Amino acid sequence: MAGTDISKPDISSDWPAIILVEPQLGENIGAAARAMRNFGLGQLRLVAPRDGWPNERALATASGADQVLERAVVFPTTAAAIADLTFVAAATARRRELEKPLLGAEGCVAQTRSALAAGGRVGVMFGGERAGLSTEDVVRADVIMSYPVNPAFASLNLAHAVCVFAYAWRNADGAAPPPYVQIEPSPAASHADLDRLFRHLEDELIAAGFLFPPEKAPTMMRNLRTTLQRAALTDNDVRTLRGVIKALTGRRGT
Amino acid sequence: MAGTDISKPDISSDWPAIILVEPQLGENIGAAARAMRNFGLGQLRLVAPRDGWPNERALATASGADQVLERAVVFPTTAAAIADLTFVAAATARRRELEKPLLGAEGCVAQTRSALAAGGRVGVMFGGERAGLSTEDVVRADVIMSYPVNPAFASLNLAHAVCVFAYAWRNADGAAPPPYVQIEPSPAASHADLDRLFRHLEDELIAAGFLFPPEKAPTMMRNLRTTLQRAALTDNDVRTLRGVIKALTGRRGT
Repeated sequence: MAGTDISKPDISSDWPAIILVEPQLGENIGAAARAMRNFGLGQLRLVAPRDGWPNERALATASGADQVLERAVVFPTTAAAIADLTFVAAATARRRELEKPLLGAEGCVAQTRSALAAGGRVGVMFGGERAGLSTEDVVRADVIMSYPVNPAFASLNLAHAVCVFAYAWRNADGAAPPPYVQIEPSPAASHADLDRLFRHLEDELIAAGFLFPPEKAPTMMRNLRTTLQRAALTDNDVRTLRGVIKALTGRRGT
Repeated sequence: MAGTDISKPDISSDWPAIILVEPQLGENIGAAARAMRNFGLGQLRLVAPRDGWPNERALATASGADQVLERAVVFPTTAAAIADLTFVAAATARRRELEKPLLGAEGCVAQTRSALAAGGRVGVMFGGERAGLSTEDVVRADVIMSYPVNPAFASLNLAHAVCVFAYAWRNADGAAPPPYVQIEPSPAASHADLDRLFRHLEDELIAAGFLFPPEKAPTMMRNLRTTLQRAALTDNDVRTLRGVIKALTGRRGT
């Protein structure tokens, strides 16, 4: 992990290709590239981007996902963009009178991964901002992918649509939570340690006159113990709490 | 479904609250609101938005999710924004030396839904564009939510981060694929219909001299049948294919 080798970008998968069909705003292309790199995807294909290519605004919103944009390939038509692919999904929320398999993001990820594992070349198409994919584009796809959107507000931002798929793709690696944010948990306290803690606490509370009247003391201690044990105390927690008790009783001058 | 009642927005859930802590760009607030409404979330809270509130640029990028922005409530501090909540998750990708439960989006959705079902008031906090949530903010949360991002490029756009959670929230309804894009599938062909189709095809192929030499004919037909049955033919498909055979043989003049 020492230094960055530009020739080997930190992209875990060149597949699936993400294909943006007639995207309009450079900002959305850049934001899509950022989301791709966030979730480890590296191959971007653009069909007839409205404002040409390369696009300054795309670079400005990619926030460092420049390597994805630099490797992007532009095609004149959808047919050309998917010519070499063996399995293609079309992302769309619009109702289509097509009898094609309709999958959610997870289902689409599963089928795409199967096709990839079988040696295929796979891609997912997303339509432009104005109207999404044309029916002609969707007909070319092997499956339709839809998200469970609010029917009254179904149109996702282009980069958001790419982001959800990219998330689902990487999430299927089963790496949740991600190892790099995992911290070494301190070991759970033993019940002997807990007993010592509660005895210490009880002794001090008796000395302080808190467990009064005496016949209520067992119930009060039982409740306190239940509360504290709910916190799933660690070794460290027990040491800290005993320090707290000592400090508080010290202040009381006992 | 006739007409739109503005007093009753098409938002399926007022919970969880989405809390943006010190967001900077109105564009991102608007895009977050759009993603929220896409996936049926309606309650937005803003902690000290840098450019004040309301924000014209937020409205411009919300693409119609104005009702989410209009109902947004601004708070001066994180503590104030979560004061009434009983369960709060903090979205962060940075390593924290905190022993809090660390969940992926799905795990966070599950715990948040449990807390909500138990009568709680729940929210998810997202940090501003510059550095995400402060450690002080994360300490206030009950759980940490992280996505399985590329460790070398872990920083998501703010609206993308909200979008992934909102997607996971709605996806947990189990509505995949969404009913409104489901089309009525035409019924599958019966095996009697399939037999008739393949007999029709075989007769015509024999007449055309395609099944030659004769000893290979059974294997050739078996392979053809296997290929076509893989398409899971419907009633309609069978009728269409028989029409195709008739049309093709008609062109041959038989």
